[in-house]
Parts: sequence; C-alpha cells; structure tokens
Amino acid sequence: MAKIIECVPNISEGRNHEVIEACVDQIRNTAGVTLLDYSSDASHNRSVITFMGSPEGVMNAAVALTKKAVELIDLNHHTGEHPRMGAVDVCPLIPLKDITTEEAVGYSKQLGERLWNEAGVPVFLYEDSASAPHRVNLADIRKGQFEAMPEKVKDPMWTPDFGGAFCHPTAGCTAVGCRMPLVAFNINLSTDNVDIAKSIAKIIRRKNGGFDCVKSNGFLIEVPADEEKGSPARKYAQVSINMTDFNRTPLYRVVEVTKAEAKRWGVWVTGTEIVGLTPMRALIDSAEYYLQLEGFDFDKQVIENYML
Amino acid sequence: MAKIIECVPNISEGRNHEVIEACVDQIRNTAGVTLLDYSSDASHNRSVITFMGSPEGVMNAAVALTKKAVELIDLNHHTGEHPRMGAVDVCPLIPLKDITTEEAVGYSKQLGERLWNEAGVPVFLYEDSASAPHRVNLADIRKGQFEAMPEKVKDPMWTPDFGGAFCHPTAGCTAVGCRMPLVAFNINLSTDNVDIAKSIAKIIRRKNGGFDCVKSNGFLIEVPADEEKGSPARKYAQVSINMTDFNRTPLYRVVEVTKAEAKRWGVWVTGTEIVGLTPMRALIDSAEYYLQLEGFDFDKQVIENYML
Repeated sequence: MAKIIECVPNISEGRNHEVIEACVDQIRNTAGVTLLDYSSDASHNRSVITFMGSPEGVMNAAVALTKKAVELIDLNHHTGEHPRMGAVDVCPLIPLKDITTEEAVGYSKQLGERLWNEAGVPVFLYEDSASAPHRVNLADIRKGQFEAMPEKVKDPMWTPDFGGAFCHPTAGCTAVGCRMPLVAFNINLSTDNVDIAKSIAKIIRRKNGGFDCVKSNGFLIEVPADEEKGSPARKYAQVSINMTDFNRTPLYRVVEVTKAEAKRWGVWVTGTEIVGLTPMRALIDSAEYYLQLEGFDFDKQVIENYML
Repeated sequence: MAKIIECVPNISEGRNHEVIEACVDQIRNTAGVTLLDYSSDASHNRSVITFMGSPEGVMNAAVALTKKAVELIDLNHHTGEHPRMGAVDVCPLIPLKDITTEEAVGYSKQLGERLWNEAGVPVFLYEDSASAPHRVNLADIRKGQFEAMPEKVKDPMWTPDFGGAFCHPTAGCTAVGCRMPLVAFNINLSTDNVDIAKSIAKIIRRKNGGFDCVKSNGFLIEVPADEEKGSPARKYAQVSINMTDFNRTPLYRVVEVTKAEAKRWGVWVTGTEIVGLTPMRALIDSAEYYLQLEGFDFDKQVIENYML
C-alpha cells in the first residue's frame, strides 16, 4: 500500500497569469505527484493549488513551488483582501492514505526545514505540527501580516521554527503543518431569512458550543433569473460549513442536527452541496449511518481501496 | 486513467488445499493483476477467486488459471452440492473503472477464444456477452451439468461459442461473460417470523414484479448463545439480496421500500450488512440520497478517483 499525502499550498498571487502558471508548472514537472486543481481569486490576489502524491514527491514539489514563488512574488507590492504573510502563505500537508498523523507531522517538519535550507524562507509549524499551543491557528501566526513580520519574529513567542528571527525581505514567512482533510459543505434551507442560517451556524460550530470539528456561518444566496430557462430570481439562506475532521464529526450528524434545529422555525433542509474535493470516507460514513450498515470494514470491503 | 476489470472465476474444487493453492498461484504469479480474495466451500466443493487488474493482465491470469484447473481437476470424480459444468465453471468479467460494458464484452470474447485455443476448453458466452437471449442465464446453460454436456453441446441451441460441439472429457465447459458488479446485501428485521422476510423478498425482486436488478430471498438467521459474552441465543428474519446492478437499482431505494413494507407487519429494519466487496459508488449513491446532496460529481469530486 502506497503512502499518499495531499498538499494545498496557497500562494500570494491571484492576478498575474504568467506567475501563477510558472508556479503551477513546478507541480506539473515534479515526479511522483498529481496536480488535482488550482484556482485563483483576483480580489484576494491569491491562488490555491491542490496536488497529491508520495511523501517524497510532495516535499520535492512543495520545495520547487516555493523556490519559484520566492523568485517571482514580491510581497512589498502585493495588495488583496485576503491576509497573507508569505509568497507561499501556507502549505498544509493532509494524510490521505496509509499514513498516520504522526508520520505526516514528521514530513511537515522535514518540509519546513527544506523550505528554509533550499528556498531561504523561514517557516512556522502550525496545526497538528505546531511547536506550542499558541501557534496552532494560522490566523494567530499571521496576525500583522507580511508588513509586521520583521518585527514580530524578534519576539521569542513568534520566532519561526526554521530560520530563526528572520523574515525574508520579499517572500515573508510560510506556515507548514499537518491537518486533516477539510470538506466544504453547504446546507440550503427553505427560507430566505439569513438570520435562521446564522442561528443554526452558531448552534453547530465549536466556537459557540457546537461540534468540535465544525466551522460555520450563515449566508444569503441570491440566484439571478435565468430567462433562457424561464426560471425566476430566487434567494435562500445557506449554512456554509467547513468540516475540519469528518472522522470525528461526520457529515450526517451535522445534517440531522441542522434539520432538528430548522424545525423550530418551520424551516427544512432543501438540499446540501459539497464544494470541491472530498475523500470518499466522508460520504461512506453517511451511507453507513442511514442504511444502518453493521460491521462494515471500509478498508477491506470497498474495492477501490485495493486499487490505490 | 487506467482501465480496470474485476474477474471472479469459480473453480470446481473446494476441498483439496493443494489444488486450490496451485490454481490461486496462477493469479498471484501473473503481472498486472491483484488477488483480492479467495474462499472455498467444502460442501459445494467449489472455490471463488476474486482478482482485478488491466484487461490484458486479467485475460492472461484467467488463461493461466484455466490451464492449471484443466490439468488438476477431473469432473468425472467431482461431487458437491453446487451445480457445475466445468473445472473453471464460470469466469465473469466486471468493468470497474474507465471501461464501458461494450469494451468489457469485447474482452470477454477475446478471453473465451483464448480459453479454447490455449486451454482446450469450450466456452459459452453468457450475461451481457451472450450470443442469444436464451444463453444469458448461467443456470440455463449449465442445466444438466457436466454429465449431460457431451450430449447437450450437439444441440445447435447449445453449441459452445468457442470450441464447437465439444465438451472437454475431464474439464467440461466454461461460461465467460461480462456482468455488472454484484453487491451482496442483507436487511435484518425486528422479527423471527421468516415468512415476513420471504414476503418482502418477493415484493422487492424482479421475478415477482419488484426492482429490475434485485434477486432476493428470506431466511431465518439463528445466532447461538455466547456464554463468554453473556449474550443469549437469538433468531431474526433476514431479507438476503443480490443487487445485480446498483447503478440501476440503488441500495437506499431497496432499504426504503423494505422499511415501508415491513411497517404493515409492525416490523422494522434493525440493520443491514454488505457481504464481501463493494465498489464505493454503491455507497456514495446512498449518501447522496440521504444527505440530499445536489450537483455532486462522483468522478470529479471524490479525491480517490484521482489516485486510481
């Protein structure tokens, strides 16, 4: 069985097509990895690249990408809505197959060391790889952004894990760490009252006493009229969710609690959506629950597991 | 994307360990295929071998297996409960990935021709590969079994597709064909009245007007007492199902109809079981239904599909 890691670097360039392609080419041209997706946001001025492969391949590709980003991106000239502290702002490693969290943390530390040694960028370890509890959340590490980093790294609380009290003058700092696969999951409601979605979002998220592995918020989704299809404009409230560890908080449980809470407002769930990629396990868990499947062994009974 | 076929030959030997291992070794020693499982039944005197791989690898392995089975198995000395007509009794090919039914039918014909040319065994094409409607069902082809075959093949209705009006004197005939992946699925009921399970089995199966891709029957399951665990003996009725094409008749629909029908007897579904292997799609479909997932693209959104 082959070890497979997913890697989702975020680079601080979402407008210049040539720079973005030059960075993505580093993934395309590295052996042992597969480019899954990349997308750019001009207002955020940021691109998210998703690839996967062997641990060795993933580390090589991330180093090559970082070298190219350091060469081409200068944060002194970077503007955008999304907070950022580095040319490669953050580079999470996600254990996908035949690899424990502990092993993936080990690889993230190897990668951090290589980014400093080979690309000259200081690295903070975050999430499961963090060297202290106050360094788990990326938002805390990144607070002050690129502009404040040269001063911030002098504080022993915020010295990078690799590179010492230093911030690269044009490429800033990078956060590297192991985290669980994240599933972006939306639940649509039979109402256009966004306050109901916001109330439910609060009920289900950890921040307000809800599920440990749920981050959520409520939004109003406005769908314009489509004259060609003859469909009128419509609005509906949506609970938008990041499932940060579906092994610990499964999707079906969040759906069932959302249904139960929506009922008190006379509202029901009209549908759900998964945005982007999901590991199959996130859905198999829900099938097991609703079908009342007993004694199912995911690793041994799902035939695709023998192909990977 | 690589084409992957599953192959599940049934050989007419379930007692002699050496013969079984010698046959399974042919799969183990062929490049391009992976042995998934094999199991033997002494009372049936039959073994089921499951493997998968590239079309070329699967054909090579099936030919090697058949040559070995012809060498070691003599049906003149075979007794067992299960009907059989050949040393390799049946060899279904199941399209698993990036392969259409039409392509898999093509490979089954290539395999049939090779079994005749290289192993000297006449071959009937069955299921999706059948050369006439009366030759679709294996039970019809096999009727009369090994002992009747030398006469049966002389009837133009029953001439093998490869090999002409001939039956191998010790290895009989083999059926080869393309069929959809089969999921063995049990639904357990809150009653020990087996007649209720039998009634529901009739309601859901095609034979009596039910779902097109369901074969089912009702059984009484008796679980002996376990003194170590302190659990008493218990009995329950079970609807035992072969889902012959879960793409056309999905698992959740059969569960929901079973629940609805069980209600009329004051009975409910206590649990379900999948026996053996299942393609992940059979479960993802159920997750989509129960989670009310909209616009989900299985091929593009399930990350494992990029690893295969």
